[in-house]
Amino acid sequence: MAAVRIREAEEGDCGDVLRLIRELAEYEKLSEQVTISEEGPRIVGYGLYCFVYSTWKGRNIYLEDIYVMPEYRGQGIGSKIIKKVAEVALDQGCSQFRLAVLEWNKRAIDLYKALGTRDLTQEEGWHAFRFEGEAMEKLAGR
Amino acid sequence: MAAVRIREAEEGDCGDVLRLIRELAEYEKLSEQVTISEEGPRIVGYGLYCFVYSTWKGRNIYLEDIYVMPEYRGQGIGSKIIKKVAEVALDQGCSQFRLAVLEWNKRAIDLYKALGTRDLTQEEGWHAFRFEGEAMEKLAGR
Repeated sequence: MAAVRIREAEEGDCGDVLRLIRELAEYEKLSEQVTISEEGPRIVGYGLYCFVYSTWKGRNIYLEDIYVMPEYRGQGIGSKIIKKVAEVALDQGCSQFRLAVLEWNKRAIDLYKALGTRDLTQEEGWHAFRFEGEAMEKLAGR
Repeated sequence: MAAVRIREAEEGDCGDVLRLIRELAEYEKLSEQVTISEEGPRIVGYGLYCFVYSTWKGRNIYLEDIYVMPEYRGQGIGSKIIKKVAEVALDQGCSQFRLAVLEWNKRAIDLYKALGTRDLTQEEGWHAFRFEGEAMEKLAGR
């Protein structure tokens, strides 16, 4: 098994990151939702075979996606990424971080639960809502 | 009915914003989760009787809370805030914005649906997960 190093993303990783975004969307059956802006992704953390794309919200961190290519699964890479995010988050003074997961993605849910996370949709009934292009234009009267 | 003006928040609004955060948490039956950091809230948008607390993630916007005090409800203030957010989001080049809503909050859900949003938890099965203090410390090996 190759050693896994979790490191910061660099400009040169963008091509790989885009590929992983597309692979993840395919896995999530959401490929039709993938649109890459001309600015490209804003990379915050990146693992050798995986990527983490996150955003800071005051003292919370939102972790958008974690993706490990099929041939590298089962090596604990997902856990390593989450641990790294926890370290970075604590260093930055964050008190929590959040993840969104598809309910049929049992593999991911089992991992997150094993690592001590809570399912807020199940426990407290939080639902995620999204306003998109046309609805936004209409709202803004454009 | 008093005219409602949706304006940017200012430093001097922080006391009111903190009060509204606490009122909202009480309404959401989540008061025990309210902890205000020493830095206080990071205000992005603020209405005269309402507040919007949001964060930018690349070309998305996450809208954390919308709260209208009981005595000002039914005047379309919530819609005005959401419309303002849509305007700001489009101006900033965002293609979408997201909201988290408790499933028993029918009043809010009816409003968001009427304004054209989609319930991603219901439609696609997205669940919200959260890592908190103790789990994070453990993950980071501290």
